[in-house]
Amino acid sequence: MTVSDLGEHALLGRLLARLPRPSAQVLVGPGDDAAVLAPVRNERLVVTTDAVVEGVHFSRAHFAPADIGHKALAVNLSDLAAMAATPQWALLSLVLPAGWPVSDVEELVDGLTTLAVRYGVSVVGGNITRTTGPLVVDVTVGGSVASRKWLTRSGAVAGDEIWISGTIGGARAGLEMLSDPGSRIPDPVCIAKQRTPEARVRLGVAMGRGRAARAAIDLSDGLADGIRQIGAASGCGARIDASALPTEPGAAAWWQARGVDPVMAAVTGGEDYELLFAVPKKGGRLRHVRRHVANPVMTRIGVWLKDPSELVVERDGRDEALPPGYEHFENRP
Amino acid sequence: MTVSDLGEHALLGRLLARLPRPSAQVLVGPGDDAAVLAPVRNERLVVTTDAVVEGVHFSRAHFAPADIGHKALAVNLSDLAAMAATPQWALLSLVLPAGWPVSDVEELVDGLTTLAVRYGVSVVGGNITRTTGPLVVDVTVGGSVASRKWLTRSGAVAGDEIWISGTIGGARAGLEMLSDPGSRIPDPVCIAKQRTPEARVRLGVAMGRGRAARAAIDLSDGLADGIRQIGAASGCGARIDASALPTEPGAAAWWQARGVDPVMAAVTGGEDYELLFAVPKKGGRLRHVRRHVANPVMTRIGVWLKDPSELVVERDGRDEALPPGYEHFENRP
Repeated sequence: MTVSDLGEHALLGRLLARLPRPSAQVLVGPGDDAAVLAPVRNERLVVTTDAVVEGVHFSRAHFAPADIGHKALAVNLSDLAAMAATPQWALLSLVLPAGWPVSDVEELVDGLTTLAVRYGVSVVGGNITRTTGPLVVDVTVGGSVASRKWLTRSGAVAGDEIWISGTIGGARAGLEMLSDPGSRIPDPVCIAKQRTPEARVRLGVAMGRGRAARAAIDLSDGLADGIRQIGAASGCGARIDASALPTEPGAAAWWQARGVDPVMAAVTGGEDYELLFAVPKKGGRLRHVRRHVANPVMTRIGVWLKDPSELVVERDGRDEALPPGYEHFENRP
Repeated sequence: MTVSDLGEHALLGRLLARLPRPSAQVLVGPGDDAAVLAPVRNERLVVTTDAVVEGVHFSRAHFAPADIGHKALAVNLSDLAAMAATPQWALLSLVLPAGWPVSDVEELVDGLTTLAVRYGVSVVGGNITRTTGPLVVDVTVGGSVASRKWLTRSGAVAGDEIWISGTIGGARAGLEMLSDPGSRIPDPVCIAKQRTPEARVRLGVAMGRGRAARAAIDLSDGLADGIRQIGAASGCGARIDASALPTEPGAAAWWQARGVDPVMAAVTGGEDYELLFAVPKKGGRLRHVRRHVANPVMTRIGVWLKDPSELVVERDGRDEALPPGYEHFENRP
C-alpha cells in the first residue's frame, strides 16, 4: 500500500501511533496544531533545521528507509552539538512522493525515533505533504544550553589550537564505495559514517559546559569548509598539519588503491559530522573534557593564525593552499 | 543568474544580508550552526512546522515568489494562532530547483520577511538545499503562551457553541478562479485569500488569554475537517447551521454562476486559515474578546453535540451529513 492509497489523515494517524511517548517537558505533543513545551529553567533555547533530499543527500538504492530517518535527525543533532546544546525535541516534516510504500515511511520514522530515543529527544510534531518530486525529510531540532555556555563560529583567537573529533574522510569514501559497482568489499566503518552518522552530542555539550573551546562548527561540509567558516567568522587564518589529520583508515586505503591524494580527499570530503574546535593553547580544560568524554577521540590538527587570508595545509615541510569548501549546488565528489 | 550559477554559500550570504535585524530575544541569529534565543520568562514554548510544495500548494503560474514566501509563513502563524500562542521566531528551509533565478529566491524571502516583520517574528536561521524536483519551502515557527492559556483541539464540551472567524470558501474559489482561463474578472478578495492568507494571530491569542474558548483549530483543511478534528479529539458531535455560514460573497457568487452548491463548496474548501472555536454557551468572555479584536468578525455557526457520531449540516430544516474533510493525497478541488 502506498501513501496515496492510504491518504494523509490515515497515514498521519499510523505514524502518530508509532511515536514514543514524549518526555514530561512536552505539555501538548504531536497531533494538535502545534506542540507546547515547558522550557528548561534558566537555560537558553537553541534551534536549527536541516533537510535531506532524495537524489541529493541519499539514493534509495544505497539507503534503507531507516537510514534516511536516522541521517535526517543526526545532521540536526550535529548542528546543536556544535553549539554545545543538549537536544530535547524535534519536528518532522515529510514531503512524500505518492508512490512510496507506507511500510517504508513507517521504517523511516522508526529510524528517526530510534535515534531520538537514544538522545532523549521527543518528536513533538510535524507535517506530511505530498510531492511530485523526490522525498524531502526536513527536521527541526530544539534544545537548551546554559547562559553563556554556547559555542559559535566567531570566537576563535589567533594562537588557539585547532582540534577535531573522531576521523574524517570516512563518509566521503563510504559514498564512493556505495556508488562504485566494482567495490566488492566496502569498508563497514566508512559505509556507516555515510549512512548512519553519529552526532557528537556529549562531546559538544561537554566542551561548552567546561568552557574548553572558544569556537566550534560541525564538519557537515568537510574540514576545509569548517576551517573557512570559523576563519571568516572569527577573522583568523589557519595552518593545518597534514601529517596530524585523523583520516579514517578504510578511507585512506580506498584512496591509495585508486591513486587519489588521501590528504586532499579527507580535507574536502563532507558529511562526517565530526566537530571542529578552537581551543586555547595548553588548555587544561580540554584535558578535563577528554578525561570525561573518552569517545570520540580528539586530535590537534593545527593552529589559528592572525592573518585571515593565510589558509594553508603544511605537508612534508611545504605549504599548500587550503582547498575550497564543499559546494552543494555543484556535483557531489 | 540561477541558484546553481551562484552556488549555495554565495546564495546563503545574499539571503542572510536581506534578513531584517532579529529581536533582542535572539542571542545568536542566522549564519551559525543553530540559533540561540532567550525564552520568554514564565511562558511555555510553542512550535510547529509546515511545508508548501510547488505543484501541490501553489503553481508558479499563479503565485509570485513573494506570495509563496508569504503563504509559507502564514500557514505556520495560523497553526500557532490556533494554539493561542504569540509567534516570535521562524526557521526557513528552502529546497530549491537549480534553475530558479536568484532574484526569485530573494523575492520569496522578502515576501516571507515582510510578513514576519509585521508580526514581530525574527527569522533566526534556516537551510538551503538543492533538489531535482519542485520547490519546497518548509517553515518552522516558535512562539510562546502563558501557562494554561493555550488552546487545543480536545477541550470542546457538548453544548458549547461553534464559532469561526472571518469568511470561508474564499481561498477555494480563488484557486478555481486562478485555474479557470475563462474567468476574466476574478474576485480580488478570493484571490488574496488563496495567495496571501492572513493568519488570525491577534484573535487566537486574545481567545486564549481571555479564556473565551475551550478548543480551537485552524481551518487550513476546511471547515468540515476542522469540525471533525475537534469532534474526534474532544469526543463531540456537531450540528452546523448552513444559513449561518459566513461564505465569502465573491465565492458564493462564483459557485452560483456555475451551478455549484455554495454550502458544500464552502464547507469542504480548505486554505482559508480562519480559526474555529468551541465557546461556552452565553460566553461573556467571548463578548469581551470581540470588543477588543474587531477584525476579523466572528460568527456562531452551530453547536457541539454529545454524540460523536452525529455530524450534521442543518439546511432548510433538514439534516445533511457533514461531508468528509479535505484529503491531501487526492487531487485538489
